[in-house]
Amino acid sequence: MDFPRDVTAMRREFHRFPETAFLEYRTAAIVAKRLSELGYTVKAGPEIMHMDGVRGLPSDQAFTAAKEAALQAGADERWLNRMPGGQTAICGELQRGPGPVLALRFDMDALPVHESQSEQHPPNTQGFSSIHPGRMHACGHDGHTAIGLAVAEKLAQPDARWNGTVRLIFQPAEEGGRGAQPIVASGLLDDVDIFLASHLGCQLPSGQIALTADGFLWAEKWNVTFTGRAAHAAMCPEEGRNALLAAALAVAGLYALPRDGQSDTRINVGLLQAGRTRNVIADRAYLELEVRAASSEGLKRLTEGARRTLEGAALTQDVNVEIDLYGNTISAQSDPAIMTRLEKAALATKVGTIVSNWPIGGGDDATFMMQRVQQCGGHAGYCLIGADIAAPHHSSLFDIDENALERAVRLLAAFVEDAA
Amino acid sequence: MDFPRDVTAMRREFHRFPETAFLEYRTAAIVAKRLSELGYTVKAGPEIMHMDGVRGLPSDQAFTAAKEAALQAGADERWLNRMPGGQTAICGELQRGPGPVLALRFDMDALPVHESQSEQHPPNTQGFSSIHPGRMHACGHDGHTAIGLAVAEKLAQPDARWNGTVRLIFQPAEEGGRGAQPIVASGLLDDVDIFLASHLGCQLPSGQIALTADGFLWAEKWNVTFTGRAAHAAMCPEEGRNALLAAALAVAGLYALPRDGQSDTRINVGLLQAGRTRNVIADRAYLELEVRAASSEGLKRLTEGARRTLEGAALTQDVNVEIDLYGNTISAQSDPAIMTRLEKAALATKVGTIVSNWPIGGGDDATFMMQRVQQCGGHAGYCLIGADIAAPHHSSLFDIDENALERAVRLLAAFVEDAA
Amino acid sequence: MDFPRDVTAMRREFHRFPETAFLEYRTAAIVAKRLSELGYTVKAGPEIMHMDGVRGLPSDQAFTAAKEAALQAGADERWLNRMPGGQTAICGELQRGPGPVLALRFDMDALPVHESQSEQHPPNTQGFSSIHPGRMHACGHDGHTAIGLAVAEKLAQPDARWNGTVRLIFQPAEEGGRGAQPIVASGLLDDVDIFLASHLGCQLPSGQIALTADGFLWAEKWNVTFTGRAAHAAMCPEEGRNALLAAALAVAGLYALPRDGQSDTRINVGLLQAGRTRNVIADRAYLELEVRAASSEGLKRLTEGARRTLEGAALTQDVNVEIDLYGNTISAQSDPAIMTRLEKAALATKVGTIVSNWPIGGGDDATFMMQRVQQCGGHAGYCLIGADIAAPHHSSLFDIDENALERAVRLLAAFVEDAA
Amino acid sequence: MDFPRDVTAMRREFHRFPETAFLEYRTAAIVAKRLSELGYTVKAGPEIMHMDGVRGLPSDQAFTAAKEAALQAGADERWLNRMPGGQTAICGELQRGPGPVLALRFDMDALPVHESQSEQHPPNTQGFSSIHPGRMHACGHDGHTAIGLAVAEKLAQPDARWNGTVRLIFQPAEEGGRGAQPIVASGLLDDVDIFLASHLGCQLPSGQIALTADGFLWAEKWNVTFTGRAAHAAMCPEEGRNALLAAALAVAGLYALPRDGQSDTRINVGLLQAGRTRNVIADRAYLELEVRAASSEGLKRLTEGARRTLEGAALTQDVNVEIDLYGNTISAQSDPAIMTRLEKAALATKVGTIVSNWPIGGGDDATFMMQRVQQCGGHAGYCLIGADIAAPHHSSLFDIDENALERAVRLLAAFVEDAA
Repeated sequence: MDFPRDVTAMRREFHRFPETAFLEYRTAAIVAKRLSELGYTVKAGPEIMHMDGVRGLPSDQAFTAAKEAALQAGADERWLNRMPGGQTAICGELQRGPGPVLALRFDMDALPVHESQSEQHPPNTQGFSSIHPGRMHACGHDGHTAIGLAVAEKLAQPDARWNGTVRLIFQPAEEGGRGAQPIVASGLLDDVDIFLASHLGCQLPSGQIALTADGFLWAEKWNVTFTGRAAHAAMCPEEGRNALLAAALAVAGLYALPRDGQSDTRINVGLLQAGRTRNVIADRAYLELEVRAASSEGLKRLTEGARRTLEGAALTQDVNVEIDLYGNTISAQSDPAIMTRLEKAALATKVGTIVSNWPIGGGDDATFMMQRVQQCGGHAGYCLIGADIAAPHHSSLFDIDENALERAVRLLAAFVEDAA
Repeated sequence: MDFPRDVTAMRREFHRFPETAFLEYRTAAIVAKRLSELGYTVKAGPEIMHMDGVRGLPSDQAFTAAKEAALQAGADERWLNRMPGGQTAICGELQRGPGPVLALRFDMDALPVHESQSEQHPPNTQGFSSIHPGRMHACGHDGHTAIGLAVAEKLAQPDARWNGTVRLIFQPAEEGGRGAQPIVASGLLDDVDIFLASHLGCQLPSGQIALTADGFLWAEKWNVTFTGRAAHAAMCPEEGRNALLAAALAVAGLYALPRDGQSDTRINVGLLQAGRTRNVIADRAYLELEVRAASSEGLKRLTEGARRTLEGAALTQDVNVEIDLYGNTISAQSDPAIMTRLEKAALATKVGTIVSNWPIGGGDDATFMMQRVQQCGGHAGYCLIGADIAAPHHSSLFDIDENALERAVRLLAAFVEDAA
Repeated sequence: MDFPRDVTAMRREFHRFPETAFLEYRTAAIVAKRLSELGYTVKAGPEIMHMDGVRGLPSDQAFTAAKEAALQAGADERWLNRMPGGQTAICGELQRGPGPVLALRFDMDALPVHESQSEQHPPNTQGFSSIHPGRMHACGHDGHTAIGLAVAEKLAQPDARWNGTVRLIFQPAEEGGRGAQPIVASGLLDDVDIFLASHLGCQLPSGQIALTADGFLWAEKWNVTFTGRAAHAAMCPEEGRNALLAAALAVAGLYALPRDGQSDTRINVGLLQAGRTRNVIADRAYLELEVRAASSEGLKRLTEGARRTLEGAALTQDVNVEIDLYGNTISAQSDPAIMTRLEKAALATKVGTIVSNWPIGGGDDATFMMQRVQQCGGHAGYCLIGADIAAPHHSSLFDIDENALERAVRLLAAFVEDAA
Repeated sequence: MDFPRDVTAMRREFHRFPETAFLEYRTAAIVAKRLSELGYTVKAGPEIMHMDGVRGLPSDQAFTAAKEAALQAGADERWLNRMPGGQTAICGELQRGPGPVLALRFDMDALPVHESQSEQHPPNTQGFSSIHPGRMHACGHDGHTAIGLAVAEKLAQPDARWNGTVRLIFQPAEEGGRGAQPIVASGLLDDVDIFLASHLGCQLPSGQIALTADGFLWAEKWNVTFTGRAAHAAMCPEEGRNALLAAALAVAGLYALPRDGQSDTRINVGLLQAGRTRNVIADRAYLELEVRAASSEGLKRLTEGARRTLEGAALTQDVNVEIDLYGNTISAQSDPAIMTRLEKAALATKVGTIVSNWPIGGGDDATFMMQRVQQCGGHAGYCLIGADIAAPHHSSLFDIDENALERAVRLLAAFVEDAA
């Protein structure tokens, strides 16, 4: 497999082969191979991911299928074999004499979204839409991975002006907020002095850079199961315990949880599967939901309300309810030192207007990495790189202004070089 | 494959291998083979099923898999090949000189219900529970098929006292109400003088026979799809059009449709599948529901209300809704002539106390056969054969009192013989 | 006040002055005066009503206002004074030698319904619509009272052919099912040999008489209060506990309680009052509801579901819920002896075709009287007297075919005379 | 009537006599009398309120009752007579030579909240709780009015150091956002150079002053009526069109409208009244609701969603829905010039720590005054004066730290004097 080197071409290649959380085998193998070729010391899999307590891992069958597909798509088997059980993180490290340890984070995973077939959708008109039905890079991580590799190449040039250690971390499973914690648990962040994570888009227009001091949402992700009793829906509906109806009443109640005057909040039930067949009272309903809030207090109020709502709906229909915590993300604050360094880089490279405090309105589990770096005495930051988008993040028509890719590469390289 | 001949043993064999609507390949092949061995002229597949307009057929892949499984379970390949594309009806015919054409209907399909693992559940303790996870004979059709074969054997005895033509119809896909109409469309009922369909259980206790003049519910079965717009649930929930929430509000509204003072009614949403992943506003929701009423006017009121409820819920969330009619059943009235003949048979065989007008509270698409027979000048009837049940029809703990099987065989044979 | 004697004219007079439960002061005073003039021995108030445990009585202020209004509308003060505290029952008794004690029940109360202003509504075109905004005879009790007085007059004629004792009971507060029990508690039914209650309309067409052996619904009537916590809806909605939302979710859940395959059911929330002002989270919601079922087992299932639904909704919003039993009605069976006697009367008077087992689909607390008579060894029955209606009972356009009034008078008089 | 002069005593007097929107007769008369005694030129009623298009005015009966109660509570009849038809605004003006026109706004109305009877509630323990059941100063306007009078006295002192014109505006009906627009329409703000409105509490602790540049929510207030069809709930529920159920489904849907990633939002249904009696399908439901958002675009999205939700719920139940716009408030931005002047005053008087950009999270129709002043070339501002509160605004246990009153008086007087 001959992988392109132009950042846009790379992004399109990644876009064509979307891989969802913990199944980024092809993507990770390409990243590892390229970093290695560029002279980086590459770590992969268990070396940099400790998986204790990771929730929602795909099945062994899914791992095998993903590896097999990656192999057929030309991925290097040696790298695939270094990433057992969904441990698809890759880290490339380069050293140039003494100096600080500087880490950048890039996420690689795609989403279970079905890419639009519209003729207006650029990936279709330009021939790089997803080859995997039901999976799509609908959040821009294809661009992130491409940017990471382009930055890697730039920093590996002999004339790149930096000293110390550069560590480029390619993270799986940002969606669902589960990939960062295993990397933190491996200790990879413990000696980092300067950490920066970034994201394209997020409604920041092309040509702008947001120094984002805070604005992450705290989140919990729950899997919920209602269990009732089946019965013939016509002959004896009164014998049933309707899990589907309990779920429906719960959904109505969950979205109706009060807005919070002290803390922005979010709630979403993104998946609901209930019942088996038309003429049987449904005895099972399964929901996947998330609650988010701008503060941990706000999240506490919201989770309490959500729990009561689920239990109340269960009581109503005399069914059981089981709530499993599937994942969580925390908020974090960017250090002013990082924001200042980034501002310098932006001014030096002229890649965009600087905006302060653009609300992220979402979450990114890079916050676990930021927290760890700060706990160990380093400084951490997060920034948004403006990119016009064709449709909202996670929608089937999502696409980014590819002009932002090159700008991002220049900005991040300059950040490492501490451009003045 | 050596299939047993005892009615109870047959029922248990059928119970072990449940096959859902239009996939009754193994069952039908066994039935065909046995009828043929008993001297019946056997018709199968396209000869007796005209499939124009049949809704909700399984996929070709499902047909292939079902045939393959039947083959491995010992079914006769020649019969399997005569039933392409889900045309799994079988009809055995025997003639004895001049006389009326007399038809009995037996249904063969199982349900997508997961059989209980309970140690109290007789199929478990006695070793005949379903070998197919997620499928179960939870309505007694295993018993019906066994009764049909035992009646076939009895009527084929030289000493059986009847004249004319006996036609034993083994119907697929009674669940969902889709198997009878294609058989009617083939013309198989057009020359029938006397028609009887029967059902075990239905809350009628063992030892009772119900002459049921009416009491069927009219029904419509709908597949409903809400289509909205996906969006990142945290960054821009306001950009989404929430199909899952629309479905939940619709479900609450559907069950709340008014009870009807003039007509008993039922409504059930038996399946709901919505969304893909937690942090995306769900852009699609799919429901399978049925509405039933004791009169066509009542059904009209209820379907109008259901339609408004679905459209209202869609409007609320600014999503589209598509309503597809998947199937329907009609009511029918048993002819007094048939009921009188059945009463004679019951008295003669002493198989049970006779009860009049037991409410069925459900539907059976045998009513399409009854209607056709009556339209062509014949007489038709429907009866319930009492059988204690361990749990409601369609529940995972459903089981019938097997003592009812032999009684049913004697009753139906005596009905054919016009016992006096 | 000069009250008319023609049954239609009387009905219209009563229609103009509707009085709701336990406030039928004018109506009762007119009835008492007329019965007295006709020679009946009249009992009123505490003599024939024992009020222990009566629920939902109006306030003393309401009693005073109703009496005052009755007085101004020409009611006789002496009779008003014999009916303190809502004890507005009247009983007229006439004796003619030895013979059975025969009692007829007539109910007098109106409903809190606002009569239609439509120009098509006969009470408007013919000038007898309600003079009290918000109150209306929307169930036909105006007709019942008029029939009672006309029957009284007929039976008081010298040529009326009957022996024994006739007792004409004019009952308050049938709506809500609260007026009959206090009369039963007074002992007024204990020596009755033959009891008949009747109702106009109930979807039985003019010219038909229904001998109704059963078909009453069991019922419970509840008053429900949710209590939460107020808060500024914009500044701190998260501090509130939303009683109004709890009530709304409860209402959706209540109507959605499962239909019952063994027993016809009804549920209605007829009143909901919640909150005070727009920008405050509502801290209180009050509901009045009723649940009904064709069997006591069905009612038990339904009330259990309703209780769970109310508690589940309260849990969802973290509010308290209080459920008060306001009233209940029972079912009853008419004695064949009564139905036979009524059939004879109908045949003799030719007032209508006889229908059996017309479903009432509602309730009438005359069932408490029927039960008491039967417990004491007498016979009791209930019948419907067909009358075309312009709109459903309890609707603001309700009106009855007045031709039914005279037919009812003849039928009931003939029933007393035991016409052959 | 001898009204106290101490600011705390005044606040308590106003607290005892709460008067709701457009009925502040006693309060306004007291204010007018005192301003007049202090030498202010007082305008009242129609002079400073143009009522065209004002929504939600109380009835003439309510005006009469409020005036009568004010009269009995000692209010001066001459002032009462100058405020016909709810025109209860008062403006006191004082001139001292040339200089800018400077206006302060104080609001006077109470809420339809029932004051807590708790023994922990200071108004109870100290004897100044509301004498009017169902009405309460639960938002601090009693304090505002008292502050306004104390400021008036201070500025009227000979030694007060200011020039120009001071205009103290006492506004009715801030709750519901209806009192400011009629005052603006009268032209009273057109020549104002410097305008300041303020509010106590709003979760800002005692001892802090918030210079609030923005943070108001845009709002619309709607009155909604569902009209269906009544029917007997047991005999013929299918004939009804259930307005109460439509309202309940609407309420669930309204609270569930999506949170907005670009704009904080609020929604509240604060009043719901539906149906008349238990056994009638409710033919009418009435709701009072408000929607708010941090931007006009956010408000547009939310109102569109609310409209669809109401119409969808109506469609579901086949009822009509009527939506009336009752009121609206706009956002506004404080001018930096005003904030600077206020900061100087706060520093000079040492009344509290200065906080920037405290989120108001609510609305105040003083924004209409701010907008008008700015349109005419003046400068306008809004500030929050910290005051610990015992319970949230609008709750029945609301109470403020009275120490804030004197601080507010000093701050506002210093603001007028332009303290340096």
